Amino acid sequence: MPFRMTEMVGCEFPLFAFSHCRDVVAAASRAGGFGVLGAVSYTPEQLEHELAWIDDNVDGKPYGIDVLIPETQAVGRTVSGDEIIAQIPPQYRDFTRAILRDAGIGADEGAPHGGSQAPNTSLGQELLEVSFNHPVRLIANALGTAPPEMIAAGKKHGIPVAALVGAREHALKQVAAGVDIIVAQGSEGGGHCGEVATVVLVPEVIAAIEQAGADIPVLAAGGIMTGRQMAGMMAMGAAGAWCGSVWLASPEAETSEVFRQKMVEAGSRDTIRSKHRTGKYSRQLRTSWHDRWEKAGLAALPMPLMSLLVEPVLRTIDQAAVGGNAAAQDLATYWVGQGLGLVNDQRGTATIVQDFKQDFVAAFENLAANLD
Amino acid sequence: MPFRMTEMVGCEFPLFAFSHCRDVVAAASRAGGFGVLGAVSYTPEQLEHELAWIDDNVDGKPYGIDVLIPETQAVGRTVSGDEIIAQIPPQYRDFTRAILRDAGIGADEGAPHGGSQAPNTSLGQELLEVSFNHPVRLIANALGTAPPEMIAAGKKHGIPVAALVGAREHALKQVAAGVDIIVAQGSEGGGHCGEVATVVLVPEVIAAIEQAGADIPVLAAGGIMTGRQMAGMMAMGAAGAWCGSVWLASPEAETSEVFRQKMVEAGSRDTIRSKHRTGKYSRQLRTSWHDRWEKAGLAALPMPLMSLLVEPVLRTIDQAAVGGNAAAQDLATYWVGQGLGLVNDQRGTATIVQDFKQDFVAAFENLAANLD
Repeated sequence: MPFRMTEMVGCEFPLFAFSHCRDVVAAASRAGGFGVLGAVSYTPEQLEHELAWIDDNVDGKPYGIDVLIPETQAVGRTVSGDEIIAQIPPQYRDFTRAILRDAGIGADEGAPHGGSQAPNTSLGQELLEVSFNHPVRLIANALGTAPPEMIAAGKKHGIPVAALVGAREHALKQVAAGVDIIVAQGSEGGGHCGEVATVVLVPEVIAAIEQAGADIPVLAAGGIMTGRQMAGMMAMGAAGAWCGSVWLASPEAETSEVFRQKMVEAGSRDTIRSKHRTGKYSRQLRTSWHDRWEKAGLAALPMPLMSLLVEPVLRTIDQAAVGGNAAAQDLATYWVGQGLGLVNDQRGTATIVQDFKQDFVAAFENLAANLD
Repeated sequence: MPFRMTEMVGCEFPLFAFSHCRDVVAAASRAGGFGVLGAVSYTPEQLEHELAWIDDNVDGKPYGIDVLIPETQAVGRTVSGDEIIAQIPPQYRDFTRAILRDAGIGADEGAPHGGSQAPNTSLGQELLEVSFNHPVRLIANALGTAPPEMIAAGKKHGIPVAALVGAREHALKQVAAGVDIIVAQGSEGGGHCGEVATVVLVPEVIAAIEQAGADIPVLAAGGIMTGRQMAGMMAMGAAGAWCGSVWLASPEAETSEVFRQKMVEAGSRDTIRSKHRTGKYSRQLRTSWHDRWEKAGLAALPMPLMSLLVEPVLRTIDQAAVGGNAAAQDLATYWVGQGLGLVNDQRGTATIVQDFKQDFVAAFENLAANLD
């Protein structure tokens, strides 16, 4: 049996590289993996620009995009960014101002602004329409059940739809909604995550889908940084691995040199699963930023207010960190999973894919040696 | 290469069955696995009795014991149980009385008592001495770094010493202390656990040991309930699997029928990692017992006070639950990992071992099919 993912999305090796950075996406696909561009924060025009660049740089290899289409706003009214920002309580903005001031950064920096930050269905649909003008081979929904419009669009264009889940129950909802691929992400993963660890979640989701009488492949996500782990998860029944954090230490990534160095130095116990970045639990590198929030005792705001408040602040901190501000370097954080404990150096994306392939074969041979 | 564990401890298949119940230990070893008796709560006389029973029932197959020898009390004065119990603040005992009363159980039940509950080194050493009169093939230390006395005793008797760890740093300390086998238990496991998930912890510990220039095998623990997961972890480099929770749904186990049924019905999100059972973080089935503690807002007591307070109460609740008390059935809890989401029925210990073997081979064949 060849890899099932090769049939479904055309990649040579079922290693999915989720990244917000087109360079990582193109490099991962060129190396035989499958790059997936996180398109949530783009405008349709920006996305068109990014995908055109990928087409020019991917050597005809397959790639996909990841969007966020909230099911509950399937036909929502268009809310302006300013209207939403007005809902952020003043003491929260005062608090982020204080963080910046204490780091010696002008407190007027990092003010919330609207723009494309507030996700809504019409934007998600527009992004999908843009992607259909490019040879995308996968569309993924990052959060919540994929809405009927998305499933229908995938079917119409003959492109598989994937959905990320953190619990067995959510997987069953996605399967019922008609998705083609499930990405089961364990609690140890970076970004949005549930409570259940990868080693339990993946077999649990596979069993649930089987019991439901469906035949939907499951990609394993959460903590996977090596081809040995990938092989291990495939021995448990996964059809491949979906990785996000491993690319963040790659010089092609959108991360700063400051963050990449912090990532190399950090261990698996240096992450935190917190609601204080997006309003839902997401795993991040734990830094003095989180200490400040814990001390402040301010409850997390709901989506999308939390992101609207903190993203501009964190971008300002990143810029100051790169400029050499020590306090900002201390505060700097990003989404990353516990797997960062397995990252010992900054490697290029192509090298990472190559290392995965070698380790994958080594893992298999290891196991085989035990069965002679 | 045969299984490395076969050479080290004589088992046919490197599936370690940790249990407080001699029936599980003997049955797992007879079936080709390796039973490990959790001996922490026994007196030396009780342990002698249990091991004699195992010898009579294990058909000459190898087995081991697990003790708890605190390194910090390497030569501690003997503290009486009553002296320790006197340190439990009165409002804590009032609170557990209220839980029992609300469940219609006499509030005088479940009073703390001394006995063997307070671990100390001399007791641990006595337990070890008892075990050396039996053909044990492994001694494991459940918590903290194995003390020099234990390492020395293992060497003297030619018995490998294993130690459980939940973090890379702890593994390195254990290796430096001279242990022969590391059990790396992820955060999803039942009982005492750290923060790092199995899929990250196991490769991280293996890499750290390798980097330290040592050649110490690592058993994977935490969330493993099937032979496919076991094969997966061995593909990642583990020398075998160490399982505790999977045996709890076996009719041979020390668990009540009430708990076993709760375990079959529960999903992977029904556990809690809490300090409110032993004083250190341990993972348990989440029930109304935990809701009560959360509502009460009482901080966890340090070891061993927390156990001295709650163990008699929980045993009383278990008895009432088995007797048909609905409130007690609701409260009843026990240590168990997230893997309980993979348990769908009560199977005998021998059947579980047999299922592991079959799934192990199936997992390997699955992976092999991808590489043809």
